[in-house]
Amino acid sequence: MRTAGDTDEGGVRRRKKAVAPAETRGWMKRLTLERLTRYYICLCDNSSRSQSDVVSSARIAECVGVDDTQVRKDLALIGVRGRPRVGFKRGEVIAAIRGVLGFEKQCKAVIVGAGRLGGAIAEYPGFADFGLSIVAFFDNDPEKFDTVIGGCKVYSTGEMKQVIRELGARLAILTCPADSAQVLADELVDAGIRAIWNFAPTTIVTPEDVIVGNEHVSVGLVALTYYLRRSE
Amino acid sequence: MRTAGDTDEGGVRRRKKAVAPAETRGWMKRLTLERLTRYYICLCDNSSRSQSDVVSSARIAECVGVDDTQVRKDLALIGVRGRPRVGFKRGEVIAAIRGVLGFEKQCKAVIVGAGRLGGAIAEYPGFADFGLSIVAFFDNDPEKFDTVIGGCKVYSTGEMKQVIRELGARLAILTCPADSAQVLADELVDAGIRAIWNFAPTTIVTPEDVIVGNEHVSVGLVALTYYLRRSE
Repeated sequence: MRTAGDTDEGGVRRRKKAVAPAETRGWMKRLTLERLTRYYICLCDNSSRSQSDVVSSARIAECVGVDDTQVRKDLALIGVRGRPRVGFKRGEVIAAIRGVLGFEKQCKAVIVGAGRLGGAIAEYPGFADFGLSIVAFFDNDPEKFDTVIGGCKVYSTGEMKQVIRELGARLAILTCPADSAQVLADELVDAGIRAIWNFAPTTIVTPEDVIVGNEHVSVGLVALTYYLRRSE
Repeated sequence: MRTAGDTDEGGVRRRKKAVAPAETRGWMKRLTLERLTRYYICLCDNSSRSQSDVVSSARIAECVGVDDTQVRKDLALIGVRGRPRVGFKRGEVIAAIRGVLGFEKQCKAVIVGAGRLGGAIAEYPGFADFGLSIVAFFDNDPEKFDTVIGGCKVYSTGEMKQVIRELGARLAILTCPADSAQVLADELVDAGIRAIWNFAPTTIVTPEDVIVGNEHVSVGLVALTYYLRRSE
């Protein structure tokens, strides 16, 4: 039985004894990365709020829902310091987050599963800004072969190895049913994929040098319905 | 300008001065809820792994990617204790989590936005198990009116108030574009919705007694691509 472990809370996972934990390699922890991503989304959001050139840590904290001490600590970690009683330069914070998280470095991804979820991900407007480009779809339904979704051609899963190598994709987004997830994950790894973003409602395991992020959409739902049920 | 705040890290949000923080009301914190949900998913996962009647905290910890002390602490919090060197009864843990998180209490939800993402959510197999039932779709595209997605009829957004009241839905899942999210959120609140699960790529704000969970799918992606870029 393959096993998996050694991760910080919540999802991005690699096998035990695999690679040293993120922090010992000088990598940021997952929760820090998540907060920085939320600050970034908040600062780039052009909706209703005033978008002045200077923004306070309190304003970012309010938008994201964390303590403002946490915001100042996180921004200091990536080398951004604000001016007391003035705040942070919006553009400077945005650029620093982009730089640290590597958004300028393009990351090619394939989507396995050309259903509604795969299509929704391909059409999601925000991913390009994070340096993600979807380059191909794979499905096992012959009716979908050679169709185009969100600008990307759908190939047969039988062609994965060849197409992934030709296109140089390193990330795979798995939106297939639970029962085929592990088999497809194994084939993706064999084709050279180094990171799998798994939306299939099951846990997948991979060799130690392949990073897996299990995206359990239900997790966000449960917290919300818990509070809803309690408040009624 | 409406503002929002007072939440624990990451998403479920209510306005400041609104309601007392979760913990002072005897509610569990969001991160605890998320961990319990992950334990539950792991224990219910019928894929490859052996599904014996007894499971160790180490096994759950490995599956979810947290420390096993954390698992024992969380399970003790919901009244489940294992036997030393034996483990926890799988069925007992599952039942306890279901009870505490309220999965038996049906929660009716509507989906606003009958596009790919809305469809993917409606078709997601796992939600029913968490007590969520989707009862209607709303869209502003006349071509979609009266069509059926995942067993649910698509209504015009102009009918939201009436239909939501008739069906008694309390939760809305927002999958519309960013620029219409706030207007629709206001209408949903007016129609009696008490919790909004927001997939639109923007932040929405609501009155103090309406709970909002902003689901930024990109957050999971960024952590994954960060580690991928670093490991190459």
